Amino acid sequence: MASQGNAAVEEEVEMTSTGSNEENVKRRNGGNDEAEEVVSVERTFDGVRVPSWTEQLTVRALVVSFFLSVMFCVIVMKLNLTTGVIPSLNVAASLLGFVFVKLLTEALEHTGLLRTPFTRQENTVIRTCVVAAYGLAFSGGFGTYLFGMSSSVSSQTTELNDADNIKDPKLGWMIGFMFIVSFLGLFSLVPLRKKMIIDYKLMYLSGTATAYMINWFHTAQGEKLAKKQVWLSGKCFIGSFLWGFFQWFYTGGDGCGFATFPILGLEAYEHNFFFDFSPTFVGVGMICPHLVNISALLGGIISWGIMWPLIENQKGNWFPADISADSLHGLRGYKLFIAIAIVLGDGVYNFIKVISRASVSFIAAYGKHPTSTIPISDDGQPDIDPCVKLYDDDNEKRTEIFLKDQIPQWVAYAGYVVVAIISIITLPHIFPPLKWYYVLVTSIFAPVLAFCNAYDCGLTGLSLASNYGKLAIFVIGAWAGSSDGGVLAALAACGVIISIVSTASDLMQDFKTGYLTLASPRSMFVSRVFGTSIGCVIGPCLFWLFFNAFEDVGVYGSKYSAPYSMIYRNMAVLGVQGFGSLPKHCLTLSCIFFALAIVVNLIRDMVGKKVARFIPIPMAMVIPFYIGPHFAMDTVLGSLIVFVWEKVNKREADSFGPAVASGMICGDGMWMLPQAFLALARVKPPICMKFLSRQMNEKVDAYMADL
Amino acid sequence: MASQGNAAVEEEVEMTSTGSNEENVKRRNGGNDEAEEVVSVERTFDGVRVPSWTEQLTVRALVVSFFLSVMFCVIVMKLNLTTGVIPSLNVAASLLGFVFVKLLTEALEHTGLLRTPFTRQENTVIRTCVVAAYGLAFSGGFGTYLFGMSSSVSSQTTELNDADNIKDPKLGWMIGFMFIVSFLGLFSLVPLRKKMIIDYKLMYLSGTATAYMINWFHTAQGEKLAKKQVWLSGKCFIGSFLWGFFQWFYTGGDGCGFATFPILGLEAYEHNFFFDFSPTFVGVGMICPHLVNISALLGGIISWGIMWPLIENQKGNWFPADISADSLHGLRGYKLFIAIAIVLGDGVYNFIKVISRASVSFIAAYGKHPTSTIPISDDGQPDIDPCVKLYDDDNEKRTEIFLKDQIPQWVAYAGYVVVAIISIITLPHIFPPLKWYYVLVTSIFAPVLAFCNAYDCGLTGLSLASNYGKLAIFVIGAWAGSSDGGVLAALAACGVIISIVSTASDLMQDFKTGYLTLASPRSMFVSRVFGTSIGCVIGPCLFWLFFNAFEDVGVYGSKYSAPYSMIYRNMAVLGVQGFGSLPKHCLTLSCIFFALAIVVNLIRDMVGKKVARFIPIPMAMVIPFYIGPHFAMDTVLGSLIVFVWEKVNKREADSFGPAVASGMICGDGMWMLPQAFLALARVKPPICMKFLSRQMNEKVDAYMADL
Repeated sequence: MASQGNAAVEEEVEMTSTGSNEENVKRRNGGNDEAEEVVSVERTFDGVRVPSWTEQLTVRALVVSFFLSVMFCVIVMKLNLTTGVIPSLNVAASLLGFVFVKLLTEALEHTGLLRTPFTRQENTVIRTCVVAAYGLAFSGGFGTYLFGMSSSVSSQTTELNDADNIKDPKLGWMIGFMFIVSFLGLFSLVPLRKKMIIDYKLMYLSGTATAYMINWFHTAQGEKLAKKQVWLSGKCFIGSFLWGFFQWFYTGGDGCGFATFPILGLEAYEHNFFFDFSPTFVGVGMICPHLVNISALLGGIISWGIMWPLIENQKGNWFPADISADSLHGLRGYKLFIAIAIVLGDGVYNFIKVISRASVSFIAAYGKHPTSTIPISDDGQPDIDPCVKLYDDDNEKRTEIFLKDQIPQWVAYAGYVVVAIISIITLPHIFPPLKWYYVLVTSIFAPVLAFCNAYDCGLTGLSLASNYGKLAIFVIGAWAGSSDGGVLAALAACGVIISIVSTASDLMQDFKTGYLTLASPRSMFVSRVFGTSIGCVIGPCLFWLFFNAFEDVGVYGSKYSAPYSMIYRNMAVLGVQGFGSLPKHCLTLSCIFFALAIVVNLIRDMVGKKVARFIPIPMAMVIPFYIGPHFAMDTVLGSLIVFVWEKVNKREADSFGPAVASGMICGDGMWMLPQAFLALARVKPPICMKFLSRQMNEKVDAYMADL
Repeated sequence: MASQGNAAVEEEVEMTSTGSNEENVKRRNGGNDEAEEVVSVERTFDGVRVPSWTEQLTVRALVVSFFLSVMFCVIVMKLNLTTGVIPSLNVAASLLGFVFVKLLTEALEHTGLLRTPFTRQENTVIRTCVVAAYGLAFSGGFGTYLFGMSSSVSSQTTELNDADNIKDPKLGWMIGFMFIVSFLGLFSLVPLRKKMIIDYKLMYLSGTATAYMINWFHTAQGEKLAKKQVWLSGKCFIGSFLWGFFQWFYTGGDGCGFATFPILGLEAYEHNFFFDFSPTFVGVGMICPHLVNISALLGGIISWGIMWPLIENQKGNWFPADISADSLHGLRGYKLFIAIAIVLGDGVYNFIKVISRASVSFIAAYGKHPTSTIPISDDGQPDIDPCVKLYDDDNEKRTEIFLKDQIPQWVAYAGYVVVAIISIITLPHIFPPLKWYYVLVTSIFAPVLAFCNAYDCGLTGLSLASNYGKLAIFVIGAWAGSSDGGVLAALAACGVIISIVSTASDLMQDFKTGYLTLASPRSMFVSRVFGTSIGCVIGPCLFWLFFNAFEDVGVYGSKYSAPYSMIYRNMAVLGVQGFGSLPKHCLTLSCIFFALAIVVNLIRDMVGKKVARFIPIPMAMVIPFYIGPHFAMDTVLGSLIVFVWEKVNKREADSFGPAVASGMICGDGMWMLPQAFLALARVKPPICMKFLSRQMNEKVDAYMADL
């Protein structure tokens, strides 16, 4: 589920910047990584007893995990429903987990009630649980396949929106569905963990980076820095939350408030070029690589600045002039299907690339260790090199701990078979068009796909879960056909595959983190189960809350438009029906962009990193194509902040940039909760901050004077 | 014209915070003022030749002076026309003067064109010129007596607004009037400079502080800090200017834009409680002492939060219910006359206090040096003590330089007599009701009043120029009577007195600065003449520009309401006519507040500084009484920024606070110029940012949908 910083952005793929963690690792070793990169991490922890796996699962860790899980679920849900772009929250989760427990422990020690020190294994447990929970908030498909089944989304289309193809969100079935598919994923790869972590020595970039961060936190120097980071993060959190609260007062109507501020003028606003004062996306921009942000803005300019106005001019020619602006047979159709074309083009390219590369590597690795396919960072240095060398020294101790607490093989196999049988029986009841034999076939192939993805992810840091999901959409869609709810079957199958595949690779990341922090695989697994259970309940509940609280969830052009739900549904429609009634030239344009996405990716891979960092990333350009460039303005601002900060003080920017960004994202995200409750209680904001042209203002003033 | 930090705020009196300058002086001497306060300043400059007076008046100094003069005139004019509260810009003038010439010099040296080093005497020349010019932008009465004569102001009253009592601003007579009265002031006290500076050793707080700052700038350490300060100040300048520019786009109509942002809700906005996003007044708040800002806010709460709503409830009882909101016979009458009562109460109290104290001191000083009436700062330490001790050591050299370049006595006497004769002839032509014998009497008494004020100012740091002006209003008003333009005569006489008195005391400050920086009195005088000439031309021109560019200058409730012009005019009406047709109970209330102002001042002086710093200052409470508390919200925010900054880093706040504030004030002020030109060119802002209640917004949306 985690992609490397400079890799393409997947819609549901997290974008992580591991820079700061590596920095930490280096700094811990005296700042001079050349000379000291062979220093042993574990020697730092000499004399610190490794607690048994049951001791790692403390009550305080689980309590803190629970609260952090809820918080991160809220944030991910917000991101799901706004743009679908989700940055990595790993750093924030590890950091907050560390400091909360540390403060709790210190407070309790002060009262004399508690004397158990806070261990890094406990920290890993918290991080695992939180990541599991918020991972489900994404892989549950609330912004993609699952919400794509709803009538809110299907009512905006004209194709295949009959009752057979609609499944409206209800709390009951959503929780049941999530429990089934998530646990399938959990059991699927457990038996292979030794092979992948110890034998293949797979990297798992995100897991490794997190582990090094956790190790670093538990040194004296690291603890000091972590506290500073959290202090800053906390200030940003509060500021961002209060800003959300403040903004709310001025949103008493449609098109009111800061989120509609025409910062470039009303003309630009009409074309969706404005800054929406969202700390969330400024924060996202600070975490994402510059290239991603600039690609997004570029995508916005190409689409909303050039292409859409040109296509709009063909109104009455390419598509009927009297058609509603929201109809997929008009301009919106172009926006949607061109976006889908790019998503698919990018998916196909990466799929082929990664699978072929991994196969070569896998075959080569069958005798020896995998060949180096370690990603190269922007500055031409191997991204994780210091860590690789570091951990070689500590292998022995880690392997010993890792192999000590086994999870019996029969638990995994039996678990998988039982859950699979349950799913074969129950899923067709939830989604009638999803026949039991589709589920059976899916359950058989899923572990294979899960292994592929976990292996790829270990090698390259890229999770292709959503690509496997799209594959499922087209395969099951074509198999089911258009007669009996093929769209619903396709989306449901997509959900099953995405959940299994992403849960499995995430679990492997956890094992890697556990391996590097000497946490027991057993405590990792239990923590994952706990986190997954939380996620399976909290995720649907939060979605349910927001869905009911806000009026226009899923509606095109609204604040919570959940753009990917429309994209996913229409991919299913395409899969079931082929290219039906697209407006004129839309198929041609889509094919061009499909090809372009592949070609640009190919060029990026062929020209070498030095040049590639000036070539935009197709996947990052997609979202503005569909929902407009305004969020790209936020992320570019975030980039600019980081850029200037790095110029002024590189070290400070590296240490504190992600902390500031996390604080901003979390604070703004958490404002969602009170906002939703206010909306449910029908408390409406009192003031509308409105932007009128001078001419319109004169008319309005005259009208108001008459009242 | 400069009052001490913790002293009462006069409407036209500058509020200066000399803290940072003293800090500089201390730091220059090694930071330990206890041990080293007897170190000689002049020893630092050993070996630096003192240039002759003609060498001090360099072309580059005059060019820089000119541009800075224009800039500061714009800023002061803005403050005149908005609230009439003018903070001290001495620090900014000295600082910018230093850095501009320094940069210019370095650039020229780089090209090899120039090899003359930049001296502190030159710096003093620049500062003197700039202060002279922007002093006139205030003492010219564009926000007080002079604009009070106009029909824009008089049309808002019902009393004595006949043609005889109106003199509309015209460029010609304004420039003429200013040249006459300003030069009268210049010549009036020149012969007494040795007596006041050398014999009486008067303090002139503002002049002394500026001199120490200039001396400090010309040390290596000081130069470094000054550059840092200017760099920061420049960033704030640009930020503030751009913010003004940005805001402008959203002001396309009445009640549009950030300046009307209902930050506390629409209800509070109705009562004028809102934050108007004005960097100027945030900056003013940063420079003014906390007590002044809090007093202003308190005044706003007492008046607009409590009293006005209560009086409003008496509508139909105390005053007719059908009266226009702008009529002085309604609620606005209470606002205006209660404000005048406080202004007068404070004026009477300070007048009596200062005159009596100064008389005692003067009589005592006639044989020996003046007794200590050095003001005590907030922390109970004498405000300027280190400086006093420091300069005792350097007295000899300074006195020698000061006495070297004499200004012949006959020049001063002849100059005064000639200008007085011109004024006796011309002023009655400009203002027909101002008979020649009024001018003659004024010209005879003015030097006496000027001496009183210059002496008081030297002792206490407080200039009472505006109080002498009020005295003139009542004396000449009563003499002229209500028949033939008595109001105009009173205001004109007020102008003559204020100009003479404040120019004279400012000149004495300059001599003090010159004395302490070894600048020649002759170059000081020439620089003052140059600055005065600039001010006499630029001041009226800028006023003329703004008056024509903006539609509602002087109109109650508008952005450029120039509140003191209304207050001055109505003082004149009171002086001429007595208490005419004030609304019911208004006189009683005014008397109560007149007495309260005196009593509160008395208490403040009697309880000692420790307690006094918690007692509000009546004079600071006045402006919100009349125009509303919104500007007090800005200044309190400024206070808060400084307060927090001091808590975080006291030294940094002291060094850079005034620089930041100056930058904010100057940047926002300078935006006035392009804004005025845009208005003249009839370029209107394109967008209106409007704030509507939710209910009203629904109606407006419905109306707009119908269009």
